[in-house]
Amino acid sequence: MLQQVLEYAQANRERFLTELVNYLAIPSVSAQPEHERDTHMAALWLAEHFHKLGMSAEVFPTDRHPVVYAEWKGQHSQAPTVLIYGHYDVQPAEPFELWLSPPFQPSVRDGYVYARGASDNKGQHFAHIKAVEAYLHSVGTLPVNVKFLVEGEEEIGSPSLSGFVQQHRKMLECDCVLISDSALRSLHQPTLTYGLRGLLDLEVTVRCLGRDVHSGHYGGAVQNPIMALAKILATTKDDHGRVCIAGFYDDVRTLAEDERAELARLSYTEADLQRETGARAAFGEPEFMLAERIGARPTFEVNGIWGGYTGSGVKTIIPAEAHAKITCRLVPHQDPAKVAEVIAAHLRKATPFGAELEIRLGRGSPAALVDRHSPAMQAAARAAQATYGAPPLFELEGGSIPIVADFQRYLSKPIVLLGFGLPDDSIHAPNERFALACLDKGIEASARFLSEVTN
Amino acid sequence: MLQQVLEYAQANRERFLTELVNYLAIPSVSAQPEHERDTHMAALWLAEHFHKLGMSAEVFPTDRHPVVYAEWKGQHSQAPTVLIYGHYDVQPAEPFELWLSPPFQPSVRDGYVYARGASDNKGQHFAHIKAVEAYLHSVGTLPVNVKFLVEGEEEIGSPSLSGFVQQHRKMLECDCVLISDSALRSLHQPTLTYGLRGLLDLEVTVRCLGRDVHSGHYGGAVQNPIMALAKILATTKDDHGRVCIAGFYDDVRTLAEDERAELARLSYTEADLQRETGARAAFGEPEFMLAERIGARPTFEVNGIWGGYTGSGVKTIIPAEAHAKITCRLVPHQDPAKVAEVIAAHLRKATPFGAELEIRLGRGSPAALVDRHSPAMQAAARAAQATYGAPPLFELEGGSIPIVADFQRYLSKPIVLLGFGLPDDSIHAPNERFALACLDKGIEASARFLSEVTN
Repeated sequence: MLQQVLEYAQANRERFLTELVNYLAIPSVSAQPEHERDTHMAALWLAEHFHKLGMSAEVFPTDRHPVVYAEWKGQHSQAPTVLIYGHYDVQPAEPFELWLSPPFQPSVRDGYVYARGASDNKGQHFAHIKAVEAYLHSVGTLPVNVKFLVEGEEEIGSPSLSGFVQQHRKMLECDCVLISDSALRSLHQPTLTYGLRGLLDLEVTVRCLGRDVHSGHYGGAVQNPIMALAKILATTKDDHGRVCIAGFYDDVRTLAEDERAELARLSYTEADLQRETGARAAFGEPEFMLAERIGARPTFEVNGIWGGYTGSGVKTIIPAEAHAKITCRLVPHQDPAKVAEVIAAHLRKATPFGAELEIRLGRGSPAALVDRHSPAMQAAARAAQATYGAPPLFELEGGSIPIVADFQRYLSKPIVLLGFGLPDDSIHAPNERFALACLDKGIEASARFLSEVTN
Repeated sequence: MLQQVLEYAQANRERFLTELVNYLAIPSVSAQPEHERDTHMAALWLAEHFHKLGMSAEVFPTDRHPVVYAEWKGQHSQAPTVLIYGHYDVQPAEPFELWLSPPFQPSVRDGYVYARGASDNKGQHFAHIKAVEAYLHSVGTLPVNVKFLVEGEEEIGSPSLSGFVQQHRKMLECDCVLISDSALRSLHQPTLTYGLRGLLDLEVTVRCLGRDVHSGHYGGAVQNPIMALAKILATTKDDHGRVCIAGFYDDVRTLAEDERAELARLSYTEADLQRETGARAAFGEPEFMLAERIGARPTFEVNGIWGGYTGSGVKTIIPAEAHAKITCRLVPHQDPAKVAEVIAAHLRKATPFGAELEIRLGRGSPAALVDRHSPAMQAAARAAQATYGAPPLFELEGGSIPIVADFQRYLSKPIVLLGFGLPDDSIHAPNERFALACLDKGIEASARFLSEVTN
């Protein structure tokens, strides 16, 4: 049966790619209000696609971007049900000028498809959809019952989905949740993720003046909001990258020795980091290895800063205000609300004379840990080994999938985090891409998992 | 004779205003390449205007924006020659959204004309042009020979004018230089400026990564260029606003006791500063009074900062690089090149591990001091008293007119700095304006000066 399924997928590769290109062309940026029509368009495209495969599908409106739900219940009711999660929303594509081809005009070059969302996450959940199609259109059935939940707010912290999952527990009932929104070490070394960091976002504004003023007439006599902001930010980290905010590390989980040993087996090196990012050097808490800094330690990172004149040439002003966007990655067992509180208290205390600080806090989402030893995880390990030719390593992932904690809370079923992307996919960055080999292998791994999970 | 001249000016107020509005409508922003046609247009408009008054005028090309030169030599050759300087270029108008009327669609409201350049400097040198017109078109002659030098690069540090003045010393020969590019305390309290701060501009880029990266996948393991930039900037000033760069204050002139006393007479208070700027409080070197901080002390001010994502919502990246624009105001006897050196050395030393610093240094211009007691200054004092009804106070101005030091060097003649604007003209800021009363009084003061300077 599996042989037939994989042959179907192989025979339909070009059509699959064409469909993915169409899906990627929809600029479904959830953070930017000007793309609201596009997120709706992506949801409709998906629902239509599920219908064409012979699945029932529905688009649920939310306060912001709709949720797409689809299911196939052709198996007998004792067969396991797999809930597959993905997100059709994408990160903003700025800075546009650094893209070699436009972010929403997908370009296929050298075995990759380049587009915003190619790897994160359209390409990855598309692989699951195509695995399901391959079963249904070759052997005419699936080994399991399948549900799809594809949301449009992952990149903005999934504000609507939490309530949706709570409200639709019954509809979403399943035996395990399968999520592909991460990366393998390589196409020869699969990884299974058993932890995700949480996320807390905030935006700060420092205001010193009623309007921009002439830097000659007032320079030396008023507080400068850019300088004030720099002073505030400079207090948040020491020279080694440790966060200096009192209470920030209070509830951080310490890793068990076997976890550290397992992470060490990933042998993620400074050279890997440099190759992937172009960093001059690795940086950060020296007492932790790289895989820990990324997977097991919380962060405080400024994602953007702006204030005053940023055009060409010189403009001799002291601006009225300056701004920064900040996100923290959280780890077990940090509480987003408590972390937000200690950060806000620190920033207020660090605000210099003559400056006024305004903090806009996001809602935040906690970190998540999943059971490394569940039967579903073991099925995923077998599928990964058969697909990629090596037993998977277990890793703590630095990124966040906000809804995972809610799945654990409301569905109480094992979660499998099996990534299909690669570390150099440039997700969240210009020239994001997804290898065509990753699409092939992702379809295969998905098909194998759906078969393995019945054992 | 003067009576007739002033009556002419009074009778032609509305036409003058219409002409000024046309001049202000030309968006002659020197810093922005996209306005290069507009700076040329402004130069041509001016030359044409001088021609219409019956003066000879010429537009001299430079490497960037042209210089306009005009003269009237109808007086006998023993009569004094006054060289009037102004600049037709204006500051960038950003942020556009804070303007109540568009910056290049001049709007007359409540006795003011609102437009970018209204006070700095089109309105002010226009007053001199109209004073000359009033003489020529009423009594048919001027008490002195007059030369105009109006440049298009003042707001970018006058890079071409220095060489121009050196090369055209002969053409520019004169008995005094008259410059109106500053402000009175009020229409009842004229001021004469005897010192201007110099300017040094630099732009810094901090680079940590080869590209923007995902803040989850790499956060905690790489240096963040925004944080690195904040750390660098935070080291440049202490909590009282003193510049902490070694050598920065080395050559700063100490004021004489009579100068301090004179500055104290300006009685510029924290309340004045707050009213003009909306500042929460005055700030800066506590051991100096406000007028000294602004006129007699050098500054280090960040004019703009940018890096990473600055759009709406959240984008979870660590950017590859971050940037800041900085200008210093310099005072006698600081050497721009030497100050640039100590700043660059400090910034390099302050650059944290994992970050690479690039510094782009401007050419800089030194501060200038002019003789408070020259006969030309005394003529200006008499003209100001007759026009505004009070004897002028002497002040050290915080702004810069880069060419003044070159006038001193190449022309070696007294310089008069008689401002026509007001402190709340919002120059370099949104909603720049020039009071119609300032235009009237400016024309009168100019006419009176041209008459007084012969005594």
